[in-house]
Amino acid sequence: MKIEQFVNMMEEVAPINLALSFDNVGLLVGTDRKEIKKVLVALDCTIEVAREAIANDYDLVLCHHPLIKEPINRILPDEYSTSVMYMLIRNGIGMFAAHTNLDAANGGVNDVLANIFELQDVVADPVEGIGRVGNLCSPITLAKLIKIADERLQTKSKCVPANFESDFEKIIVKRVGVLGGSGGGDIGIMKAMDADVLITGEIKHSQAIEAATKNLSVIQAGHYETEMVVLEPLITRLQKFKSGVEYNLTSCESSSLR
Amino acid sequence: MKIEQFVNMMEEVAPINLALSFDNVGLLVGTDRKEIKKVLVALDCTIEVAREAIANDYDLVLCHHPLIKEPINRILPDEYSTSVMYMLIRNGIGMFAAHTNLDAANGGVNDVLANIFELQDVVADPVEGIGRVGNLCSPITLAKLIKIADERLQTKSKCVPANFESDFEKIIVKRVGVLGGSGGGDIGIMKAMDADVLITGEIKHSQAIEAATKNLSVIQAGHYETEMVVLEPLITRLQKFKSGVEYNLTSCESSSLR
Amino acid sequence: MKIEQFVNMMEEVAPINLALSFDNVGLLVGTDRKEIKKVLVALDCTIEVAREAIANDYDLVLCHHPLIKEPINRILPDEYSTSVMYMLIRNGIGMFAAHTNLDAANGGVNDVLANIFELQDVVADPVEGIGRVGNLCSPITLAKLIKIADERLQTKSKCVPANFESDFEKIIVKRVGVLGGSGGGDIGIMKAMDADVLITGEIKHSQAIEAATKNLSVIQAGHYETEMVVLEPLITRLQKFKSGVEYNLTSCESSSLR
Amino acid sequence: MKIEQFVNMMEEVAPINLALSFDNVGLLVGTDRKEIKKVLVALDCTIEVAREAIANDYDLVLCHHPLIKEPINRILPDEYSTSVMYMLIRNGIGMFAAHTNLDAANGGVNDVLANIFELQDVVADPVEGIGRVGNLCSPITLAKLIKIADERLQTKSKCVPANFESDFEKIIVKRVGVLGGSGGGDIGIMKAMDADVLITGEIKHSQAIEAATKNLSVIQAGHYETEMVVLEPLITRLQKFKSGVEYNLTSCESSSLR
Amino acid sequence: MKIEQFVNMMEEVAPINLALSFDNVGLLVGTDRKEIKKVLVALDCTIEVAREAIANDYDLVLCHHPLIKEPINRILPDEYSTSVMYMLIRNGIGMFAAHTNLDAANGGVNDVLANIFELQDVVADPVEGIGRVGNLCSPITLAKLIKIADERLQTKSKCVPANFESDFEKIIVKRVGVLGGSGGGDIGIMKAMDADVLITGEIKHSQAIEAATKNLSVIQAGHYETEMVVLEPLITRLQKFKSGVEYNLTSCESSSLR
Amino acid sequence: MKIEQFVNMMEEVAPINLALSFDNVGLLVGTDRKEIKKVLVALDCTIEVAREAIANDYDLVLCHHPLIKEPINRILPDEYSTSVMYMLIRNGIGMFAAHTNLDAANGGVNDVLANIFELQDVVADPVEGIGRVGNLCSPITLAKLIKIADERLQTKSKCVPANFESDFEKIIVKRVGVLGGSGGGDIGIMKAMDADVLITGEIKHSQAIEAATKNLSVIQAGHYETEMVVLEPLITRLQKFKSGVEYNLTSCESSSLR
Repeated sequence: MKIEQFVNMMEEVAPINLALSFDNVGLLVGTDRKEIKKVLVALDCTIEVAREAIANDYDLVLCHHPLIKEPINRILPDEYSTSVMYMLIRNGIGMFAAHTNLDAANGGVNDVLANIFELQDVVADPVEGIGRVGNLCSPITLAKLIKIADERLQTKSKCVPANFESDFEKIIVKRVGVLGGSGGGDIGIMKAMDADVLITGEIKHSQAIEAATKNLSVIQAGHYETEMVVLEPLITRLQKFKSGVEYNLTSCESSSLR
Repeated sequence: MKIEQFVNMMEEVAPINLALSFDNVGLLVGTDRKEIKKVLVALDCTIEVAREAIANDYDLVLCHHPLIKEPINRILPDEYSTSVMYMLIRNGIGMFAAHTNLDAANGGVNDVLANIFELQDVVADPVEGIGRVGNLCSPITLAKLIKIADERLQTKSKCVPANFESDFEKIIVKRVGVLGGSGGGDIGIMKAMDADVLITGEIKHSQAIEAATKNLSVIQAGHYETEMVVLEPLITRLQKFKSGVEYNLTSCESSSLR
Repeated sequence: MKIEQFVNMMEEVAPINLALSFDNVGLLVGTDRKEIKKVLVALDCTIEVAREAIANDYDLVLCHHPLIKEPINRILPDEYSTSVMYMLIRNGIGMFAAHTNLDAANGGVNDVLANIFELQDVVADPVEGIGRVGNLCSPITLAKLIKIADERLQTKSKCVPANFESDFEKIIVKRVGVLGGSGGGDIGIMKAMDADVLITGEIKHSQAIEAATKNLSVIQAGHYETEMVVLEPLITRLQKFKSGVEYNLTSCESSSLR
Repeated sequence: MKIEQFVNMMEEVAPINLALSFDNVGLLVGTDRKEIKKVLVALDCTIEVAREAIANDYDLVLCHHPLIKEPINRILPDEYSTSVMYMLIRNGIGMFAAHTNLDAANGGVNDVLANIFELQDVVADPVEGIGRVGNLCSPITLAKLIKIADERLQTKSKCVPANFESDFEKIIVKRVGVLGGSGGGDIGIMKAMDADVLITGEIKHSQAIEAATKNLSVIQAGHYETEMVVLEPLITRLQKFKSGVEYNLTSCESSSLR
Repeated sequence: MKIEQFVNMMEEVAPINLALSFDNVGLLVGTDRKEIKKVLVALDCTIEVAREAIANDYDLVLCHHPLIKEPINRILPDEYSTSVMYMLIRNGIGMFAAHTNLDAANGGVNDVLANIFELQDVVADPVEGIGRVGNLCSPITLAKLIKIADERLQTKSKCVPANFESDFEKIIVKRVGVLGGSGGGDIGIMKAMDADVLITGEIKHSQAIEAATKNLSVIQAGHYETEMVVLEPLITRLQKFKSGVEYNLTSCESSSLR
Repeated sequence: MKIEQFVNMMEEVAPINLALSFDNVGLLVGTDRKEIKKVLVALDCTIEVAREAIANDYDLVLCHHPLIKEPINRILPDEYSTSVMYMLIRNGIGMFAAHTNLDAANGGVNDVLANIFELQDVVADPVEGIGRVGNLCSPITLAKLIKIADERLQTKSKCVPANFESDFEKIIVKRVGVLGGSGGGDIGIMKAMDADVLITGEIKHSQAIEAATKNLSVIQAGHYETEMVVLEPLITRLQKFKSGVEYNLTSCESSSLR
């Protein structure tokens, strides 16, 4: 598969016009290899992931987070902001990012989360199209939902309860919002969509207070843990294109906080 | 004590010129009470804290976080951004914030943290004067330091290890940076000050990766837990002014995430 | 009548979308009173008007000029920009402003002025929809029109004559523009609408010269005097809603310049 | 006298570095005449003043207000903003403006006003150096001061009394601020300089309320009337340079509002 | 012909809405002459052109380049940016500019260039509507096209060859872009329109490298030489209006670089 | 020599703090090679220069013009703005730019030009420190100076004569300014330094007219031709460091316009 074909395939999976305006997505590092045969899939293109790609002769790294966040005016192998980029180019390996467009896409991060929690009648947030809200089969306690989140996302969540209620057993939740990664900016829209609780990756202290005051519980399940769940379904989806490309999940321990 | 005298006293404890330029500190809600006799002390002036102040006839609420973050052009009792302010004014209760100036002050948030971890030869960060870096009595493992943090801050920390090292027992730390609240923006300065590890409240996913890549471990001990430790020492310090004012710590459960 | 109902009623009288973009109108200070029974009506919510509202147990002050012009980041009882606001909230009294939306509204400030001068075939300015232009029954001298203005608006006008003509008896006017308050920014549009003379509240020196040079006479009849005329018709209109609310005009001497 | 010499002479009378930063002062329209022999002096270079200058063969018009306020990108004889400029250049007549620098200068607008009211121990405002504050020989009523202002400035003043006091006989004033032209932006500095009353040319409605609330009376004596008093002393001063130049005050009726 | 009629006539020849947004075109200096009888036509209204206009009693100067590029706040006879303007107004001579609107207009600068090179199937650039691209009758070498350009534009061109090819005989061109004046900003659009070579007036060093790298040859034929060709056709066109106006090309040597 | 040592050596030759603020200079593309043994020197790092560097195993390209002018957010091998950068990194070759700092440095571009024209009592421009002005041994005609420039810079100059004088033999020049590259922005400073003529690389049409009007002749000798003269002296200077590095001038034909 040529790199142009890979780019076209990804456009079907995570269309670039779904990305937020500040985002930097798509093919961020090109490649001069004629054929893309092996793709390494990871949440972040860390230096360890880059080393794995080099050691195992990958042609491309496919990630959720962009490698270049702020525009650069020089590329040096020994500066944090450009060192991984330098390593990749030096070895002819490309890098492709599907970030907020993959958050928003059908079958993307938040659809995967909605599936994991078996939400029903799922709708996308009407403002950015990223978060999802749906109903549990039956109402459960907040304490129970935290336990489910910990099991299914393999994490250890923290929680801010609605109205600062100290007993998590006393809060009953039915309507659940999911938002992988940083979700604190969407408290208003989650309330407008009538969510009882928001499951997200990370949330700032002041946003947690805002949520509790507005009678919205928030389960903070980890940025890494709420996003890495998309990687296997993404690979499965790409494999269906039957392009002969080999996709592998990174073996690097990359949960940033544990 | 008159409110003007209280303001002057706080200026000794947390001088306003230590605050960062974006911050909104000092007397944010005035009071028409002649005498300040009872002061309620809390990290945040939540709606619960405001109710406690009203129910117990406090004259003033003294907080770390400002009640007004963005300028407002109307005050309504039923909107999140102004409802607490309305409640306070309606009941004649004032509100005073000591935020980044208290972070930076002698005996403030970060000096308290440095004491808790028994750091030696403590220096303030030379850029903003907020963070502190010092040495442990003797080198210990990262795993051990996490345990100490959990005990002394009564928290359940998460950690990103330097260089993504999977075994926390293998990382030895000696020089420790402390930064209550959100500390992810200071990774560069902490490295420049030769810290092995940063103990902070909350850190974003991308900042955690930056720290690990730069060979800095980070212990995320909770925004609330790394800041509330200042409140009792602050009360002790204010009591030394012997003004006859009664200071009480809020009884509200305000840990936003647990 | 609940405050929400009052807000809805005012929306019929002076729709908020008629306000200019810089303006700050509507409910600027909320109230926690269950019922709005007494409303005090004034051009400005001065400290005297606030004292009158408190002394006579009003629930709301309804004014033409907004109480908050620039966004604020603290509320102190002893600073000019927030002291009246503090007094109102402290006593549970709300404050509602209908400013440029009331200037523009049907039956608002400028329609009242057009009535006072018995203008015919009245049209609104097509740019902002605020000023009005119409014809006198028959042509009169500028001197005569000044006399009429002084009588009907109970004021002592000053005048800049078209083309700096020294004898006001020699200028004949037929088509009259009216614009309560500050009208100097609308000289161009008044000329475009073929007005012979503009009756307005206040005008700057350089604007007066511009008007005279462009062959437009201007009668400066006072900011207060050209706007307070709307208050009684406004009360009459609100009384027609038969809501049981009592409306009273302030008894404060509030003509700012006399 | 050459035009360069005239410019140098004016620099002694009203140094350009005294002007406020937004202002446009100095030689605004040059001249190709070899000798400046006749100078016409006026507050504003209106079209009537320009006609007078042409008819009587003046070489230069010297004014208080600048002819060009906003930068221009074309010069047309039939547009308000450039028509006077065109007339002057067409006839070889120059135009010189001394505006806020003449307000601030020794012997300028505000020193002349201070003399007129026989103020003692006069000081300039320390912020912009424009306004002046001094003491009357003995305290008098506000009513009396208004009468004096009307007589000495040949005007018909309006007044906003401190604290909205309705009886002007009851207000006693001793310390007087003077500020020719628009003075409403200086209420704070006048209060800081302990003025009881400000005599100025024009003031906006909202500024009048601010002054009254802050316990400062304001006498609005007319923009024209508070500035034209500088013209004769200015001519006297220029005549002392004994340059042989003839200076004449315009004969145009230019009081913009009467 | 009145000046208003001249303006209307020019609007047919070079409509103002064709000008780029940064441009300053149309009647830049008005005139008080009743009749426009003689018009001097030049590329630039230099001081020499102004002297010629004065000496020969022209009523108007018609130029390609605007006399005022940046807005001005004073007009002095001895400063570079306003001296020509002063001379014109002083003598009652107007000045009219047709710049990027004449570049873009039918029969304007670039249509004239397309005619000179006998291009066929000419199209305007779809972005700004200024440049033109068309085909030569038959393919020729770059060396030959340079020779033709030098002959027909009476210039001595310089050239950057596509792909830095050192032998101009080896490059065959068929599709030619023309762009009078500064053409370096349009390399992308010329490539998108499939031009083999761009004939323009001046081009910056870095733009020349960009063109060569992108396989586009550029012939730099001189800013003056690529634009002055429009003047005679412009006069011919204006003469067809049979208005009785006399048009003359300036006799000043104004080729700025030779 | 390590790359760090090369960077330090260049800092002596062309200190980075001499660069203008908009410029992007220094090591723009890093290298992972342990030793810098061969350096290719060129005015621009064109695609041909990059190919030469790769084919001949150079470790570094040293250029006058920066490879990255505007910050980038992706690096693709087939886009003009990043393709050369990609080629260099892919082959481990670094890129170093000394631009306006080399223009300004002692022994830099403009000192070399001053030497070529044997100027005496040479001074740098006091504003940016880039241009140089000095005196010829004896006055010569402009025609003669053009001939000298053509011979010594191996170019074919164009010229705009002072005051649009048509006969270059009639202009006598003594004091000469030199400014490699684009020099049109410095006409004012060259006049202030009393230059009779400016020798520069390229100048815009409007700047040429400004110069002629201000009585300054300008010889436009080519951007490439006025800058490439620095390359051999630069190599000579670097060789004096006796670092064992081999420096070679590019063999690519890179004169962009000829």
